[in-house]
Amino acid sequence: MPRALVLTKYPEEYLRLIEAEQLPGLDAVAASDVADGLARGGDSEIVLGDPTRVVQALPALSRLQWVQLSWAGVEPMLDPALRRDYALTNIRGVFGPLMSEYVFGYLLAHERKIVPRLEAQREGRWDTTLPGTLGGKTIGLVGVGSIGAHLAETARHFAMTVRGFTRSSEDCAYVNEYFHGSDKARFAAGLDYLVAVLPNTSGTRRIVDDSMLRALPAHAVLVNAGRGDTVDVDALVSALEGGRLAAAVLDVFPEEPLPADHVLWRTPRVFITSHTAAPSFPADIVSVFAANYRRFVRGDALQYRVDFERGY
Amino acid sequence: MPRALVLTKYPEEYLRLIEAEQLPGLDAVAASDVADGLARGGDSEIVLGDPTRVVQALPALSRLQWVQLSWAGVEPMLDPALRRDYALTNIRGVFGPLMSEYVFGYLLAHERKIVPRLEAQREGRWDTTLPGTLGGKTIGLVGVGSIGAHLAETARHFAMTVRGFTRSSEDCAYVNEYFHGSDKARFAAGLDYLVAVLPNTSGTRRIVDDSMLRALPAHAVLVNAGRGDTVDVDALVSALEGGRLAAAVLDVFPEEPLPADHVLWRTPRVFITSHTAAPSFPADIVSVFAANYRRFVRGDALQYRVDFERGY
Repeated sequence: MPRALVLTKYPEEYLRLIEAEQLPGLDAVAASDVADGLARGGDSEIVLGDPTRVVQALPALSRLQWVQLSWAGVEPMLDPALRRDYALTNIRGVFGPLMSEYVFGYLLAHERKIVPRLEAQREGRWDTTLPGTLGGKTIGLVGVGSIGAHLAETARHFAMTVRGFTRSSEDCAYVNEYFHGSDKARFAAGLDYLVAVLPNTSGTRRIVDDSMLRALPAHAVLVNAGRGDTVDVDALVSALEGGRLAAAVLDVFPEEPLPADHVLWRTPRVFITSHTAAPSFPADIVSVFAANYRRFVRGDALQYRVDFERGY
Repeated sequence: MPRALVLTKYPEEYLRLIEAEQLPGLDAVAASDVADGLARGGDSEIVLGDPTRVVQALPALSRLQWVQLSWAGVEPMLDPALRRDYALTNIRGVFGPLMSEYVFGYLLAHERKIVPRLEAQREGRWDTTLPGTLGGKTIGLVGVGSIGAHLAETARHFAMTVRGFTRSSEDCAYVNEYFHGSDKARFAAGLDYLVAVLPNTSGTRRIVDDSMLRALPAHAVLVNAGRGDTVDVDALVSALEGGRLAAAVLDVFPEEPLPADHVLWRTPRVFITSHTAAPSFPADIVSVFAANYRRFVRGDALQYRVDFERGY
């Protein structure tokens, strides 16, 4: 009878969801505190949890065979000093839809002028300012992995043209045109929206640099929902302050939480969303875990297995 | 050589767009003022325009054969006292995508907490409040015509369950379950979103009445983007004031502009969007007009022909 140790911020909710799955033969304990979890479930073969907690428990797990992470990001597990004698799986597939709701929520709020319209309402004004529309606009995606592909599909649903900026791959059917390498200015020219969703595995810092930002039209909106160091923040602040960019929607930052004295808190037309774009909802995570558990007990290959060398 | 009189708020933009279409043999004049338009183009066979303007010009148009309206709504043209000796066409097909951007803009703004998150930002707070998600939620559409069908498709893209409330038709593939007639409470029970998009042709006032509103969960959001009298406003205000409804997004009202002393301006959790949900963008209108003009000169049947008796 396999034992599972669940190490997460929400142990009760995870346990309830796992019990509802009625997984055959599973004995699960859950804790938010690592020491408490190890005391009750340190002999577990299976761990499901947040990477920050799992990393701390790793050395003490004597019978460990498989770790299912609750995030997409695997970086904390890749430290060469850590053991690698177990199967590591992460979460994929569930973040595309969430990221799509985040990005298109802000794109539509921008087009429909939701914030200024609400301000007009609070002043009692019948405000017939015409909205914009996403139809016919062009979106540029920096990063077209599984999340970018989902964004591209949503963009096409809203009748947008989609450009993709990738290292080399060109395999998403919803992207109209691909750009690579030094072709940044041509990629950015004429974009209405520039959306960065580079996966955690990309080693490329500041892809969205001054040259790319300067090639954007002044009415363009930047969204960064990938990693904080994808965007050159100094160049971004300069573009916003200089009126060369309509707005920036930022979920991620080089340092999080964004320090209280950071210039972005005072930069005009910035929307700060505090790393909430694509949270790990317990129901989504447990659904992936349950499918993998059934594979585990059958001896089948696990889904979303991470290769420690490649880093994804 | 057919003559066309364009009567619209934006005559220059329409003329420019019509010229860009290079329609064979067309001689067009445009005016925002009806008398000015008639003076220069009263002998036109074709009229393209806003119903409020076209109605005024109607008696004086001696050679009229065809009117292309710039709206979906045809009510001003249906007065039995008005002539009916011409072909009347309206705009269809372009409002579904616009309405979809409107409705899902507000649904996503609600789930992602865009307004409270911005307020937190203005206070300098790193606000990690979890967003909600449309995935798995249920939307109920009151009216499943061409606009409702488009909303249903977008809802399914966001992994929602779709209920439809219609007179009798059940022909939209994106609707999971249909309800009719007196089945209001069962239709509304458990809905996360109730969206009214009844076409102008529906003769049914206050379909969204107190009984339907009381059947909604307290976390539900109402959107009315159809016609103002679809919703019982007194019952709606009572539901909002009593905490029985999370929010209401209202584009249309029994009287427009909404009078300055109307209670809705002071009702909590109301979003007033001043009849901007699905504007007639000139480019969309001219595109429909151009396609119909080519049919007109070939002698083919016109698209989106209105039957004066049926009213649509």
